[in-house]
Amino acid sequence: MLESLKARVWKMNLMLPKNNLVTMTSGNVSGRDPETGYVVIKPSGVLYEEMTPEDMVVVDLQGNVIEGRLKPSVDTATHLYVYRHRSDVMGIVHTHSPYATSFAALGRPIPVYLTAIADEFGGPIPVGPYAQIGGEQIGKVIVEYIGDSPAILMKNHGVFTVGKSPEAAVKAAVMVEDVAKTVHLALLLGQPDEIPEEEVKRAHERYMTKYGQG
Amino acid sequence: MLESLKARVWKMNLMLPKNNLVTMTSGNVSGRDPETGYVVIKPSGVLYEEMTPEDMVVVDLQGNVIEGRLKPSVDTATHLYVYRHRSDVMGIVHTHSPYATSFAALGRPIPVYLTAIADEFGGPIPVGPYAQIGGEQIGKVIVEYIGDSPAILMKNHGVFTVGKSPEAAVKAAVMVEDVAKTVHLALLLGQPDEIPEEEVKRAHERYMTKYGQG
Amino acid sequence: MLESLKARVWKMNLMLPKNNLVTMTSGNVSGRDPETGYVVIKPSGVLYEEMTPEDMVVVDLQGNVIEGRLKPSVDTATHLYVYRHRSDVMGIVHTHSPYATSFAALGRPIPVYLTAIADEFGGPIPVGPYAQIGGEQIGKVIVEYIGDSPAILMKNHGVFTVGKSPEAAVKAAVMVEDVAKTVHLALLLGQPDEIPEEEVKRAHERYMTKYGQG
Amino acid sequence: MLESLKARVWKMNLMLPKNNLVTMTSGNVSGRDPETGYVVIKPSGVLYEEMTPEDMVVVDLQGNVIEGRLKPSVDTATHLYVYRHRSDVMGIVHTHSPYATSFAALGRPIPVYLTAIADEFGGPIPVGPYAQIGGEQIGKVIVEYIGDSPAILMKNHGVFTVGKSPEAAVKAAVMVEDVAKTVHLALLLGQPDEIPEEEVKRAHERYMTKYGQG
Repeated sequence: MLESLKARVWKMNLMLPKNNLVTMTSGNVSGRDPETGYVVIKPSGVLYEEMTPEDMVVVDLQGNVIEGRLKPSVDTATHLYVYRHRSDVMGIVHTHSPYATSFAALGRPIPVYLTAIADEFGGPIPVGPYAQIGGEQIGKVIVEYIGDSPAILMKNHGVFTVGKSPEAAVKAAVMVEDVAKTVHLALLLGQPDEIPEEEVKRAHERYMTKYGQG
Repeated sequence: MLESLKARVWKMNLMLPKNNLVTMTSGNVSGRDPETGYVVIKPSGVLYEEMTPEDMVVVDLQGNVIEGRLKPSVDTATHLYVYRHRSDVMGIVHTHSPYATSFAALGRPIPVYLTAIADEFGGPIPVGPYAQIGGEQIGKVIVEYIGDSPAILMKNHGVFTVGKSPEAAVKAAVMVEDVAKTVHLALLLGQPDEIPEEEVKRAHERYMTKYGQG
Repeated sequence: MLESLKARVWKMNLMLPKNNLVTMTSGNVSGRDPETGYVVIKPSGVLYEEMTPEDMVVVDLQGNVIEGRLKPSVDTATHLYVYRHRSDVMGIVHTHSPYATSFAALGRPIPVYLTAIADEFGGPIPVGPYAQIGGEQIGKVIVEYIGDSPAILMKNHGVFTVGKSPEAAVKAAVMVEDVAKTVHLALLLGQPDEIPEEEVKRAHERYMTKYGQG
Repeated sequence: MLESLKARVWKMNLMLPKNNLVTMTSGNVSGRDPETGYVVIKPSGVLYEEMTPEDMVVVDLQGNVIEGRLKPSVDTATHLYVYRHRSDVMGIVHTHSPYATSFAALGRPIPVYLTAIADEFGGPIPVGPYAQIGGEQIGKVIVEYIGDSPAILMKNHGVFTVGKSPEAAVKAAVMVEDVAKTVHLALLLGQPDEIPEEEVKRAHERYMTKYGQG
């Protein structure tokens, strides 16, 4: 079942090592099927290069495995909490990408120092407090702290991104590491000026309406 | 039309991810045809690995699409402003490459701390003030601030490079990130001495006349 | 003899350059055969890309070469000392991976600033004093200082990891570099909070029992 | 002529981009033929991926082109000066590898903070004063300042390494960047202890006599 979504979620999981966002088996991508409401997610602890589309696990929003030979990601409860509380979210990504996670380690948000942050994120990238892996704690923090941003940093932990598709959530995960790296490098040399809030809004709106082929 | 230039501009666009200067769909390369005066540029928001030479868009200097199924880059107005005001420029590149953009974030030029900067750039790499994406603001800043340099940093934004061909502009984009990285690393450990201006001139002239097979 | 273990140890040695943990011929992986007690180890100074499974050297716990055309790694005495004193260890890895070795250079342990450190290492990554390469000094330091951790940093030198298999030791070597990089980047920006010891224990236990397909 | 040496020098030139030591056309490797005394060197300004063994240029020690369709590297006079004054040197490498060049930018040597530096270099990696590219100035500085080290940093410029073969010089170029990176990262966090001179000597001698298959 859901062969097309499984193939997309599998392909998006492979984007994580391809973009140097994960090591070994860390990180995961899920996607929600709009018709059944089921969620397709990476299996737990499986190496990216050995994974096939058929290895993806289908669960319902309560975490029951609907289909799949393998155990789903240990972060499944986190993904499902977010899907249950954010009907607009159809894809979720989790990584420990190093530059973004260095801000997360410190519990420090990323201000709008770059046009790329204004364009992609529409404001500062927020940070949530420490929360335990495996249950619903992280999901609750994400829903409470992420606001309109597609990305959130989790203190002492890593990054979660959301989107209207698995592809959009992966793009946000790639971009958060990219801007985190550039901001990190800038902060080592000095203190950048923030782009003013009005200009951030204008830039974000232009980007959301004029960029791309849509 | 302009099949040969399209193939060159497409190949030069692919040099950006190959040299780790861009992520996802960010960044773009254009080239000007000396006979028609038309400009060939990357389409907006298209993934590098899925792009073909036929996807390149042909525009005139006023921004009218002459040929192409896709929308041109949102930075097209910037490229065209530079082409209209710099008849010597036949290729332009835009990136957010991370080390160069860390200097750009701070509005900080890169002094001539390395022989490679003297050779390739002939002086410090200049920086222009904040300007809005999409219209002519960035083009105006480039023309006003770039001087004789093939590269300019844009505050809170990224890098633009120009050249007598798309290939030359890409070489400048690769080199600006390379020297920005080395200078960044040096500044973390101490304060390098600048190469004196007279020696910079001598080195640059030697490089421009003796280097390569030309 | 031990063809299967040789193939595994060879494959795990290739994981070191694949994960950017080594340069040229530096680094090595060994594995112990549970039946014969023999150890299979990388030959000394051979390039990874030219190495075959047949090049792996079989030695006994006293360092006598049982089979192999090539000389074993100069770190063989270190590996054997650890195998003799830790019956639970069936795989050992040595690298000079740069971020982890930057902490090693300073003789500085890596505290539990990240959930990934709690999960994989169950506590701070310890550091041992300077010891000479080639004899038993390093082995003695490892056994004395590593405790329950799968990884130890050696002052002015590099990293050793141990595991219940060569695969587990390689995973620890990849993870120690990954968390060392993130912690290094965080320390350049500020001072992270340590995860409290009780929470580290809880997280580690959960990870060891719930993560993966086991 | 010298087909075998040309193939080796070509292959060693390709090791530079493979190990991320160069960008675009920067950097070069040469090798000396023990019988004729001729030197085989990379042509000037040619892209690594388009270069063939036949493109290598054969010159005599005075810089006369003995064979080759292309102009030799602009650094040829430097290489030849070193070959004329160091009969033991049979291979030379030049790069601007970023971490090593960050020390070079500052005119700062790399002390023996790591066993890998003791093993490979037998002492601190020295630095020479600023010298002009293209003539004999750099060669003179190398011969005067390099001592027994296989590597030297050139102020405001980059790295030169020498060896008893092109392969040995390339290994030194890879290792100097590797240890420069680790030392750079360590210095950002604190001040490493130097390994005492006597221990450096002992370690270096052991490495030169016991390491590898020789």
